[in-house]
Amino acid sequence: MAFSTSFTAAQSLAGRAIVGAGTSTTTSNRLAVPSFLSFNSLKTSARQHLQHRVVRSHRVGLVRAAAVEALEGTAGTAPVPLVEKSINTIRFLAIDAVEKANSGHPGLPMGCAPMGHILYDEVMRYNPKNPYWFNRDRFVLSAGHGCMLQYALLHLAGYDSVKEEDLKSFRQWGSRTPGHPENFETPGIEVTTGPLGQGIANAVGLALAEKHLAARFNKPDSEIVDHYIYAILGDGCQMEGVSNEACSLAGHWGLGKLIAFYDDNHISIDGDTEIAFTEDVITRFEALGWHTIWVKNGNHGYDEIRAAIKEAKAVKDRPTLIKVTTTIGFGSPNKANSYSVHGSALGAKEVDATRQNLTWPFEPFHVPEDVKSHWSRHISEGASLEADWNSKFAEYEKKYPEEAAELKRIMSGELPAGWEKALPTYTTESPADATRNLSQQCLNALAKVLPGFLGGSADLASSNMTLLKTFGDFQSTTPEERNLRFGVREHGMGAICNGIVSHSPGLIPYCATFFVFTDYMRAAIRISALSEGGVIYVMTHDSIGLGEDGPTHQPIEHLISFRAMPNILMLRPADGNETAGAYMVAILNRKRPSILALSRQKLPHLPGTSIEGVAKGGYIISDNSSGNKPDLILIGTGSELEIAAKAAHELRKQGKAVRVVSLVSWELFDEQSDEYKESVFPSAVTARVSIEAGATLGWEKFVGGKGKAIGIDQFGASAPAGKIYKEFGLTTENVIAAANSL
Amino acid sequence: MAFSTSFTAAQSLAGRAIVGAGTSTTTSNRLAVPSFLSFNSLKTSARQHLQHRVVRSHRVGLVRAAAVEALEGTAGTAPVPLVEKSINTIRFLAIDAVEKANSGHPGLPMGCAPMGHILYDEVMRYNPKNPYWFNRDRFVLSAGHGCMLQYALLHLAGYDSVKEEDLKSFRQWGSRTPGHPENFETPGIEVTTGPLGQGIANAVGLALAEKHLAARFNKPDSEIVDHYIYAILGDGCQMEGVSNEACSLAGHWGLGKLIAFYDDNHISIDGDTEIAFTEDVITRFEALGWHTIWVKNGNHGYDEIRAAIKEAKAVKDRPTLIKVTTTIGFGSPNKANSYSVHGSALGAKEVDATRQNLTWPFEPFHVPEDVKSHWSRHISEGASLEADWNSKFAEYEKKYPEEAAELKRIMSGELPAGWEKALPTYTTESPADATRNLSQQCLNALAKVLPGFLGGSADLASSNMTLLKTFGDFQSTTPEERNLRFGVREHGMGAICNGIVSHSPGLIPYCATFFVFTDYMRAAIRISALSEGGVIYVMTHDSIGLGEDGPTHQPIEHLISFRAMPNILMLRPADGNETAGAYMVAILNRKRPSILALSRQKLPHLPGTSIEGVAKGGYIISDNSSGNKPDLILIGTGSELEIAAKAAHELRKQGKAVRVVSLVSWELFDEQSDEYKESVFPSAVTARVSIEAGATLGWEKFVGGKGKAIGIDQFGASAPAGKIYKEFGLTTENVIAAANSL
Repeated sequence: MAFSTSFTAAQSLAGRAIVGAGTSTTTSNRLAVPSFLSFNSLKTSARQHLQHRVVRSHRVGLVRAAAVEALEGTAGTAPVPLVEKSINTIRFLAIDAVEKANSGHPGLPMGCAPMGHILYDEVMRYNPKNPYWFNRDRFVLSAGHGCMLQYALLHLAGYDSVKEEDLKSFRQWGSRTPGHPENFETPGIEVTTGPLGQGIANAVGLALAEKHLAARFNKPDSEIVDHYIYAILGDGCQMEGVSNEACSLAGHWGLGKLIAFYDDNHISIDGDTEIAFTEDVITRFEALGWHTIWVKNGNHGYDEIRAAIKEAKAVKDRPTLIKVTTTIGFGSPNKANSYSVHGSALGAKEVDATRQNLTWPFEPFHVPEDVKSHWSRHISEGASLEADWNSKFAEYEKKYPEEAAELKRIMSGELPAGWEKALPTYTTESPADATRNLSQQCLNALAKVLPGFLGGSADLASSNMTLLKTFGDFQSTTPEERNLRFGVREHGMGAICNGIVSHSPGLIPYCATFFVFTDYMRAAIRISALSEGGVIYVMTHDSIGLGEDGPTHQPIEHLISFRAMPNILMLRPADGNETAGAYMVAILNRKRPSILALSRQKLPHLPGTSIEGVAKGGYIISDNSSGNKPDLILIGTGSELEIAAKAAHELRKQGKAVRVVSLVSWELFDEQSDEYKESVFPSAVTARVSIEAGATLGWEKFVGGKGKAIGIDQFGASAPAGKIYKEFGLTTENVIAAANSL
Repeated sequence: MAFSTSFTAAQSLAGRAIVGAGTSTTTSNRLAVPSFLSFNSLKTSARQHLQHRVVRSHRVGLVRAAAVEALEGTAGTAPVPLVEKSINTIRFLAIDAVEKANSGHPGLPMGCAPMGHILYDEVMRYNPKNPYWFNRDRFVLSAGHGCMLQYALLHLAGYDSVKEEDLKSFRQWGSRTPGHPENFETPGIEVTTGPLGQGIANAVGLALAEKHLAARFNKPDSEIVDHYIYAILGDGCQMEGVSNEACSLAGHWGLGKLIAFYDDNHISIDGDTEIAFTEDVITRFEALGWHTIWVKNGNHGYDEIRAAIKEAKAVKDRPTLIKVTTTIGFGSPNKANSYSVHGSALGAKEVDATRQNLTWPFEPFHVPEDVKSHWSRHISEGASLEADWNSKFAEYEKKYPEEAAELKRIMSGELPAGWEKALPTYTTESPADATRNLSQQCLNALAKVLPGFLGGSADLASSNMTLLKTFGDFQSTTPEERNLRFGVREHGMGAICNGIVSHSPGLIPYCATFFVFTDYMRAAIRISALSEGGVIYVMTHDSIGLGEDGPTHQPIEHLISFRAMPNILMLRPADGNETAGAYMVAILNRKRPSILALSRQKLPHLPGTSIEGVAKGGYIISDNSSGNKPDLILIGTGSELEIAAKAAHELRKQGKAVRVVSLVSWELFDEQSDEYKESVFPSAVTARVSIEAGATLGWEKFVGGKGKAIGIDQFGASAPAGKIYKEFGLTTENVIAAANSL
């Protein structure tokens, strides 16, 4: 029986890993190892030899060995230790929830249950009854598909967000236990993960936030900010470029409070990682400046895991990667160590076999009393942890009232009264300027009044105009500073900002690159939107107006692509007051990210623009008609609003009643009342012309079937900006011609 | 004079690198080194000591040393060697072109001129009069902003695409020398670069193509496919995650013909790389399985560069990274080794100073006669190289006519007659199936008839259904196979496919992931579109219909976001015939990438769908009206076409004349004649309802001001697909209700 089972697993492994011709060598290598061989029983030298010669077939052996061990435990008289029982509880909660949903990923929770148990039961400091306690340790499951691990742990730890009924409604409509971890659904989940590689970057952001706040607020006699950030990432996360970007920065910044577990199970969806991922991860992380540890027996090496965490904590100047070699789907006799346990329910038969194998006689979703009782202490312990910290903070507040007030603002997210008065205002006499420069005035004004305002650029600070002049660089030795230097790592930058914004309600990160390079970081921007993180994206060089860099650098479809993305504000201000208005909106929207599209080129300050107008998304900047019945409505955004205004001036000279509308944010305009919308775009007025240096698709919504949209529906070109505008027909003359043709 | 100049450079370096408080240590370290110290004159041990202690201040010394050396050359009698003169020609062509344009990036060409010269003059095999000669060595400038390097080299080598007048119209409207290298503008440019990190991934794709074709077509007596792929990448490329993804695969695949130069100049736009990039790149590449070499004196070490290339060629089982430490803006006395030389013209004064410094008495754009004469041999040599290869191929063709015919097809891109007959067809009786499964039938059918068809998935082959069943895996030891295993590296995958498609007109790569994860690879997809590369993107799980994985995995805004992207085909087939039609379109569009959005869930084969219909982008699948005057038009795409058809059935029962239109590709429909469009959407019929499981923005274009668009303008949810469809209102009932309300 043992033989035949293992043989089946080996066969399925061999058949799965590589398809078709040319792979027979690998196949026969795999089968050359007797499948009943217990790998652990071999002497070290023989084991290394096997490890070298045979493509990880030993893991089949490992699973079997574990199964045998568990069975022996039952056969004998010694009770299964509580830790083992707790770990198996985690495994079976995951197995049972996935089984009931008939959908989900049991493999990771079964393999990572040991580190999960040790983290949540032995290591982490948190208060289950207040998941938002400021000084809690943070945990990020970068391999988000394994979310049942996290739900099981939150359940055992006593979080109200994951009751037994929540486990039973895993992945169902309206449940608090969705298919991937979502911070906005489940208190206790710090960040939304699932799209691979980003979670570890979020963890880097969380660790950055901790280091920054600790540097600013800790005193020799009071370490008021002091917590760790733990993460689990899998092979998939390791392959994604974003994780390398973020981990390179984590090493550079020396984020010693970041401890990441690499679940090294050698299985990804397409089979053994041998087929696509054979790099030396430990060496790569050493190159990135991390401390590294390898726990070779992650299935049973509880003490090794504990020791690794202790060692990691002792290394304070570098983040630590603990590579933990595990068996995916540990405990499943026929599916462990195979891709089939990654993303599907085990099936009733295999669930039974796993229960037998791990000696688990309990009903589905059952938490044994001794396990329950063991974990129950976290409720009181968590309350004590928070209470102690609160006392500590009270003392801190007495000694350092100013710092405490500032930190409180960061913890609560409460904006200082009158903050918005710091925003600059402009008149039509103010010198023409690029909105990227006007943006820098806003950034610097805000940094003075918002204690949690910090950010930077992906190596374009001098182009994006994002430096805070009154602060230095956040670096490993100067973590109290607020200019973040992300290097050329847009995706990592976005995901790190998602981590920062998730750390504390009052942290307001901004990040910057050229607007076209939102393409590199779109996955992170989408997570900001989905997870309700009010990151501010400062995106300059927002059109062909950037000129000679050419089409690789000129956004075309980007405005519409973000207007269509849910829960995000796409803002394209036209001048100084609109730029200030855009920042006002961005700061106020703490649960909705904002993208500011800003010009490289100089723009005049237009009559009629205003901060208040921006808040409505669309508004009239000028009109010579009466009774809400203009002959014509011209609509523009950003740098093209000037062209619309000029065309209106000419058309009025021809005797036309012309209205000019700035449509700075479609989303905000959509939220206005029907009356307001009608007051801006009266349905009776069908003569409408829009002008925007971007795709025309989508503009039908405002110009209607009888209007005209002037824009660009092809790639840009390399030439001076003025020349391209002319060649692409973005001119006053063309607006006038279009208007006259209606 | 020498002292004060260097001191200024050191000052500017120190002032630039770090902003604000907390950075005085770095600053004073820099200034602690006497700026007149010539680094090269130090003994090795002292040099290492300095290198360790002082943050690269030695590079200031290096520049000065070089300047002194050049001046000594003038003072003495020995003529400046020709190589040096050629290298300086490259430098000044770049300086002069950027100066004339008053825009561009002189720093990289000035620093990389030595390796550029050695590659194009001494190492690479190419024929300037036929930039498309199949067996040429390929060169990729991953740091695309340095394109004047490439233009200067193409000019010297005798390419017709870069004449003197082209250099003089650098970055101007209509020129062949745009601001970043564009393969579609300038023959001799292999791929379009500029967005950082992707170029090296393109190079990986080119090297994959070479290895694959060599394995398939080379014979023991004839290595008919045998060329190298060279690339230059900078610090920016190294920081981007996509380069790590692609380089991890290059190491895994053992792409020995790939030789990449890392221009290690320690400067990025924001200043010294010290501020954001301190990882150990060489060690990282070793971890990725590359051979590595460090040329420490890239400014003068011509022989070291030559030796490194020789060594790299000798290592056949691994790609090689040659780290070449250079000085950005080499030769500019006041701007070298600083960010100010990265992306702006030097300015007249500094151009003069650089001319003096490098002893360059010539007029702008002048190529000295001896340099011209030296390079002129490449025209005849290139012709010979191609002629020799042609003879070799003629012999090959005699001996191996079948292989030769196949290879010719790959070289020419000519499709085999009748290839489209291989596509499957379906009837309404065919069993309902997910379009991802129908897609796999097409992929497998096409692989049998198209010799250059190959591809794979980013670790979702079993979900995307992309395995070619008659082929094995492309791996280092089985490179003749056609299933590519990209691992979880979407961005790298897209950029690698851009390399493959650029290699030969008959190579047709496809790649796959979940549709939502186009967010990870959007930057690469845009390069496919811009550079006219007909990559096929097989994007499954194309809506909330994927069910329980939840909103992180459910695309919403993606369809519209690609419909707005220029030169790309967004196709959303509804069933078997439409899926086959989508592949027909994709294969025929070799200069336009296609994205196929495919369902996870089963769909019926609908009456009225057809391959021919898909080719028109939008067409009537059923209609019970007469005289092109239906009461109502229902429009659907993909999985929602079934809902539209069902609603039509019900509405017809109510006595309505209802037309159902499948709008499978908006772009293709846009290209149809006005008559055809009117025949599908008669302007008189304003009662129109669309249904699509995605953002409604953009649908105004088809439903008009009086119609209704049913879709999803919020994030999805985690639940079984049927439940989500119902909750989000994507139902027959809702279509009927909307229709009746019009």
